[in-house]
Parts: sequence; C-alpha cells; structure tokens
Amino acid sequence: MNAPDILERLAETFAERKTADPEVSYAARLLRAGPDAILKKIGEETAELIMASKDGAREAVIHETADAIFHILLLLSFHDLSIADVRRELERREGISGIAEKASRRQERVPPRAGDTPGKEESAGARALLRRTGA
Amino acid sequence: MNAPDILERLAETFAERKTADPEVSYAARLLRAGPDAILKKIGEETAELIMASKDGAREAVIHETADAIFHILLLLSFHDLSIADVRRELERREGISGIAEKASRRQERVPPRAGDTPGKEESAGARALLRRTGA
Amino acid sequence: MNAPDILERLAETFAERKTADPEVSYAARLLRAGPDAILKKIGEETAELIMASKDGAREAVIHETADAIFHILLLLSFHDLSIADVRRELERREGISGIAEKASRRQERVPPRAGDTPGKEESAGARALLRRTGA
Amino acid sequence: MNAPDILERLAETFAERKTADPEVSYAARLLRAGPDAILKKIGEETAELIMASKDGAREAVIHETADAIFHILLLLSFHDLSIADVRRELERREGISGIAEKASRRQERVPPRAGDTPGKEESAGARALLRRTGA
Repeated sequence: MNAPDILERLAETFAERKTADPEVSYAARLLRAGPDAILKKIGEETAELIMASKDGAREAVIHETADAIFHILLLLSFHDLSIADVRRELERREGISGIAEKASRRQERVPPRAGDTPGKEESAGARALLRRTGA
Repeated sequence: MNAPDILERLAETFAERKTADPEVSYAARLLRAGPDAILKKIGEETAELIMASKDGAREAVIHETADAIFHILLLLSFHDLSIADVRRELERREGISGIAEKASRRQERVPPRAGDTPGKEESAGARALLRRTGA
Repeated sequence: MNAPDILERLAETFAERKTADPEVSYAARLLRAGPDAILKKIGEETAELIMASKDGAREAVIHETADAIFHILLLLSFHDLSIADVRRELERREGISGIAEKASRRQERVPPRAGDTPGKEESAGARALLRRTGA
Repeated sequence: MNAPDILERLAETFAERKTADPEVSYAARLLRAGPDAILKKIGEETAELIMASKDGAREAVIHETADAIFHILLLLSFHDLSIADVRRELERREGISGIAEKASRRQERVPPRAGDTPGKEESAGARALLRRTGA
C-alpha cells in the first residue's frame, strides 16, 4: 500500500489533536491530561488484554489489542515519537539478528532475558539484539 | 511500501516459529510455553514502558514499546490472529467515527469510557466506536 | 492488638457486602460486577503505584498502595479467601527459610526467579521457599 | 496477637536488608538494584495474579497475592515507608466513611471513581474517602 496505514494515520491525527479542543476529542483530552492519564489507561488495557486472552475470547483479544495500541500510539505522540521509530527499532533487531545468527543460537540457550537480575539494563542493549534472533 | 512491513514480517515469522525448536528461537520458546508466559512478559513490558515514560527517556520509550509490541504480536500469533485484524478494528473505528461524527461530539462530553462501571462490556461495542471519533 | 486489624476488618466488611445493595456500596458493586471489574482496577492501581514511586511522591505511594491492597482484599473476598490465607503463606515461606537457610544461600546466587523460563511453575513451589530465605 | 505480625516482621527484615550482602539475600539484591527492579516485579506479579484469578485457581491466587504483597512491602521499604502507614490510610478512610456515611450514600450513586477523567487527582482526596464508605 502507498497510502499511510492506519497506525501512521492515527499518529498524524494525534499530532493534530495536541492543540485540539479537549471537549471534542478523546485523544486531545488525554494528551492535555498528560502522560499519567495515558499510562494509567495503558495499565488498564493491559489488564483487559490479559483477561481477554485467558478467556480465549479472540474477538475480545482483537478489541483489547486495538485499545492497547491506540493508547501506546498516544503515548508515543506525547513524547513526540511515532510508530515509525518503533518500526525502525524492530527492524534494527531483525537486521542484527541476521548477522548475529550463529552467535545468538548459543546465546539463546540461556534465558533470553535475565528478568530478575539487577543490572539487566547495562547489558540489555547487546543481548536484546541477540535474543530476538530468528524472532 | 509494497513489501510487508516489519509488523507483518514478525507475524509471519511467529507463524513459522510455532513448530520451530524452542532451543533455538526465543519466540518458539514463548509460543511453546503458552499464553501465560507471553502474558507475564506483556505485564512486565507494560511496567517498563510506564517507567521509561516517567523517566522522560525517549530512547527507552522506543525500546520498551518495541518490546511490548513484539510480545503483543506473539500473543496475537498464539491466538491465530495477526496485526491485520487489529488494523481492521482500528480502521473500523475510524470509519464509523466519520459517519457518527456529529452524534459522537455530544457523546464525548461524558467520560469516554465508564471505566469503573460494572456492565461496561455490554455497551462497549457501540460506545467504543463513538468515543474515538476524531481519535 | 487483640482487635482485628484494619485488613481483617475490611475482609469482614467485604464478606458482608457480597449480599449488600450495589447502589449503596462501592465494594458491593465491584463484587457484583465480578472478578473482571476487580482485576481491571488492580491493573489500574498497579500502574498508579508505579507512577507514584517514579515520582518519588511518598504520600502518593501510601495512597496507591492502600488502593491496591483494598482491591486485592476485594479479590480475595471474591474467591472466598482472606488476608489470613496470605499471611499463612508468607509465614510458611519465612518458616521454611529458617530451616533451609544454608541451602538457600547457595541457591540465591542464581537468579531467584527464572522469570522468562518456560516451565517456571513446576519448580516454583520449592524455589519460592528457598529464594525468600532471609527475606 | 501481641507479637508483630508477618507483614510487620517482613518490613523489619527489609529495613535490615538494606545494608545486607546482595549475594545472600533476594530482598537485599532488589533493594540494591533500586526501585525499577522492584516495580518491574510488581508489574509482573500483578499480571500473574490476574491470570491466577482468571484460572479460578485459589491456591495460585494465594501465592500470587503473597508475591505481590511481598514486593509491595519491599517498595514501601525502599521509600522508608511501612505497612503501618498503609494501615493508617485505610483506617482513615474507614473512619471518615463513618462520619460521612449519609453524604456518601448519595455520592456513591455516581461512578465511584472517574477513572478516565483528566483532573481526577485534584478531587481524589475528598472523593476517595467518600467512595469507600461502607467499604
């Protein structure tokens, strides 16, 4: 497709909504309210996505994912970021994973993310790239 | 763009990974482990996204959003859904919002989502469409 | 203290509220609405607790923790459980940790919780006891 | 009971653990790692609590609640707060709710928490007290 897809269109709309009347637009209202209001919604939508998945309700999974992504896009907009930045990051991981494929195979035998280990942040950069090898 | 974008490519990769060796692929391992392992990661990534946003760390917001979307795509794959289903849902809301624009303007003056109100589910279908009018 | 503390009192109140008029009591309304409404609130309060902590706002941390515990107690009540069950579990871990102290010291050098490792559930029983040794 | 209960004992233990060897104690390690590590665990445990509740697995609900409360106590300790502060807050709400009982009955007919409404924070103080009336 040549036209910007829905994710890009939403991003554009949110950029315009930053100066829109909060009385008229839900996005404008949340953007005006600030990041805490958006983050609270993200926490809420995540809980609902977990519940929909546990229910095995596929329609609800679609709805809650749409809700979650809607509010994540809104958060990106608040930070003057867009889905294009996130795509680039996902592509970067994908690209590196090709190069690092062999190394990562051994790497991936250890737990891919040292979830509870303090100090994870320091090495996360390098490992994040490896651990998604072959996605 | 004509080639499938990164979100589609990830979806395709995950579909292949369903039968891949869990020793070799992080996605295969999570898909094998089942939805609870994926959902736990989504809960974790959401917490990290909230923290990155509170830190005002834009690079970290990109990384954590990429992590969150990666695992959400994995969850969709588990349910035999794809990002296309979510795009369609977001487009449907966008489409309706055009038709329902006038009605929704009045609608939007009340809180757009009766977050705490029991029974929200029943009417969520109709209201979800209205409340996102004008995004 | 001999009188039941506030956590027990809330549990008792919630037990009574199960049959109360949802129009009159917030707890009754959430209990009537069912677990999804309570779980959604728990997801929301967790997001708010994370934000309060990131803000370094101690008063807000107290408020959000009170909110989180309020809704967790409500969830326990929904499942016909009480804070006493949770206390017993925490005491059990504490008790075992005394006995298992030496063993756990070695144990604790590995990441205490294999967060991302599929199959965590199987061994969580034993390890949970060990990993909290010495709290 | 006259002896401090398990929640107080954990708080005391955590206070001691602040200077303990992170190699030996899980709590010491998380306290050393800082609030982000603790907050990430809280996000994770919340996801697991939601899943346990959806599974209707009462034993798992007890375990995950114990995990969640363990990490919440750790967070309080990080902020030099204790469960006593949270108890006081819950008691304060309970106390006020007695005084404000009649008023709150009318108050409670509106949604008890304007979850999505920007500006909720400003009035949350007064309303929080009212909305929990009769818990």
